[in-house]
Amino acid sequence: MSIRIGILGYGNLGRGVECAIKNNPDMELVAVFTRRNPDSVKILTENVPVYSVDEAPSKKDDIDVLILCGGSATDLPVQTPEYVKCFNVVDSFDTHAKIPEHFANVDKVAKENGNIGIISVGWDPGMFSISRMYGNAILNNGSDYTFWGKGVSQGHSDAIRRIDGVKDAKQYTIPVESALEAVRSGSNPEFTTREKHTRECFVVAEDGADLPRIENEIKTMPNYFDQYDTTVHFISEEELKRDHSGIPHGGFVIRTGKTGWNNENNHVIEYSLKLDSNPEFTASVIVAYARAAYKMSKEGMTGCKTVFDVAPAYLCLQDNAELRAKFL
Amino acid sequence: MSIRIGILGYGNLGRGVECAIKNNPDMELVAVFTRRNPDSVKILTENVPVYSVDEAPSKKDDIDVLILCGGSATDLPVQTPEYVKCFNVVDSFDTHAKIPEHFANVDKVAKENGNIGIISVGWDPGMFSISRMYGNAILNNGSDYTFWGKGVSQGHSDAIRRIDGVKDAKQYTIPVESALEAVRSGSNPEFTTREKHTRECFVVAEDGADLPRIENEIKTMPNYFDQYDTTVHFISEEELKRDHSGIPHGGFVIRTGKTGWNNENNHVIEYSLKLDSNPEFTASVIVAYARAAYKMSKEGMTGCKTVFDVAPAYLCLQDNAELRAKFL
Repeated sequence: MSIRIGILGYGNLGRGVECAIKNNPDMELVAVFTRRNPDSVKILTENVPVYSVDEAPSKKDDIDVLILCGGSATDLPVQTPEYVKCFNVVDSFDTHAKIPEHFANVDKVAKENGNIGIISVGWDPGMFSISRMYGNAILNNGSDYTFWGKGVSQGHSDAIRRIDGVKDAKQYTIPVESALEAVRSGSNPEFTTREKHTRECFVVAEDGADLPRIENEIKTMPNYFDQYDTTVHFISEEELKRDHSGIPHGGFVIRTGKTGWNNENNHVIEYSLKLDSNPEFTASVIVAYARAAYKMSKEGMTGCKTVFDVAPAYLCLQDNAELRAKFL
Repeated sequence: MSIRIGILGYGNLGRGVECAIKNNPDMELVAVFTRRNPDSVKILTENVPVYSVDEAPSKKDDIDVLILCGGSATDLPVQTPEYVKCFNVVDSFDTHAKIPEHFANVDKVAKENGNIGIISVGWDPGMFSISRMYGNAILNNGSDYTFWGKGVSQGHSDAIRRIDGVKDAKQYTIPVESALEAVRSGSNPEFTTREKHTRECFVVAEDGADLPRIENEIKTMPNYFDQYDTTVHFISEEELKRDHSGIPHGGFVIRTGKTGWNNENNHVIEYSLKLDSNPEFTASVIVAYARAAYKMSKEGMTGCKTVFDVAPAYLCLQDNAELRAKFL
């Protein structure tokens, strides 16, 4: 019997989850819930109903895991504790500073209702977090480095769009190659913000806009750009659509450390991602953790979990004997 | 209170474990067991006793986890089931084909005696296995690639040393850079053995030995060298000692895969290691899993486990709340 999955929220991430389910033969999409008018939402999978979110609780017996695809700013802090009352849930809550509070809220309700909620799943937080943790556990005497990109930062793109005279924009975060090389050499460098990443902006200006003013406003924007070397390109709307409509991302987690009685030996552990589609990859991670939520719930576990609490075998389609034979 | 560790077998790996314990403030080395005459074994840590292996069972109340540092060919198949009778144990059993049998043997005895045995810990099997598994769980529609090196292969070095006229030798396994690049490009290449790795040999010949014959015997040796492009350098004993006395290793695990409704997006997950000392890194992984064995045993778990069965948080010094705040 398949694992029956529900999706709550049908944007880029929800659509990515729908695609990932198609690639996992032990799973089945059984319902999509939306805050919009359900009749206005067309999904890719045939013969799967779209419901209003209000109907979700009434479907609880038909769904093994509900995947919450809302945003971290205002949706998930409310939705995850709310829906874990009725469902095993997985979310991608990514406001790092508020994770302890979110964890506590979800844990309480999940335990009271005998469900599992796996939070902060994706690649950062998510696979990058796991890489940082394994690296630290193995090389206790060492240093951590995380680089992001090359990829589109939605937050920075939005910040540019809010500038007067800007019609549309896309911002790429780019790791500095020489900084990566210095880390890999084991020289244990320390970096300023400027030395680790650069920012490249593609901006569509309104007709007659003051381009030098826009460029200056971008480059001096506090926190978003002022601490970085930023390049601004003004392009046409057609060019933006043609060359910059993808949502690629990626990055690098590197742990360097020393071993030996006198710390005489250096080691470098590197984990990297190169992703054509940030939301589809995030969704693929989430779907693997939905499988884990299902298996762990079947074993009687309850409460809030993060990627740190999930043994790798739970993520997999195969049983444990097959995993040992195939991957170990 | 510290986690009390015992080491059984004091070669390169045992010494690496001893060094790793020094870097982990929650652990303490309490005993080393050897098959040699204990008086002949000098260890690095002060005031820690060296015993004969025969005395191990009598020390079971003093040791939380016993780390087995013997070889996979003949030692561990006997030792791991034997010592898991009295101890929680961790081993680095690396004969991939015999892991299912080893698992079954250890699992039975471990469960009968209420202990935990974590087997096949290190980097391959070990961290590379975990990377393969996470990669497969996330990108179900994709391909796996593992490359080893640049590093010293003990087995290949030994094979060269057995050739008539060879005094000493060191063999490096080297991944082919263009093959790595092809994989990273997402082109999903298929390789012959020859296309993935080359082998480089540094050989000290006996005086008056027939060098062309030795070189030919190496290059045509079945399984070890005949399927590879192999380079042979004859050097002096001094050069071997000066330039090739280290035990570096490393490698790359790459998972490429597609997502999207029509498989239109490519993704590359890459995990790599660059290690100055193969045994010290392996030991560092083992020591982290010794911590996991200790914590899991405290929670009442028993039986044989692999890296697939251990949730990442068990490996760490920090408690779960601190882990979430720091690494997630």
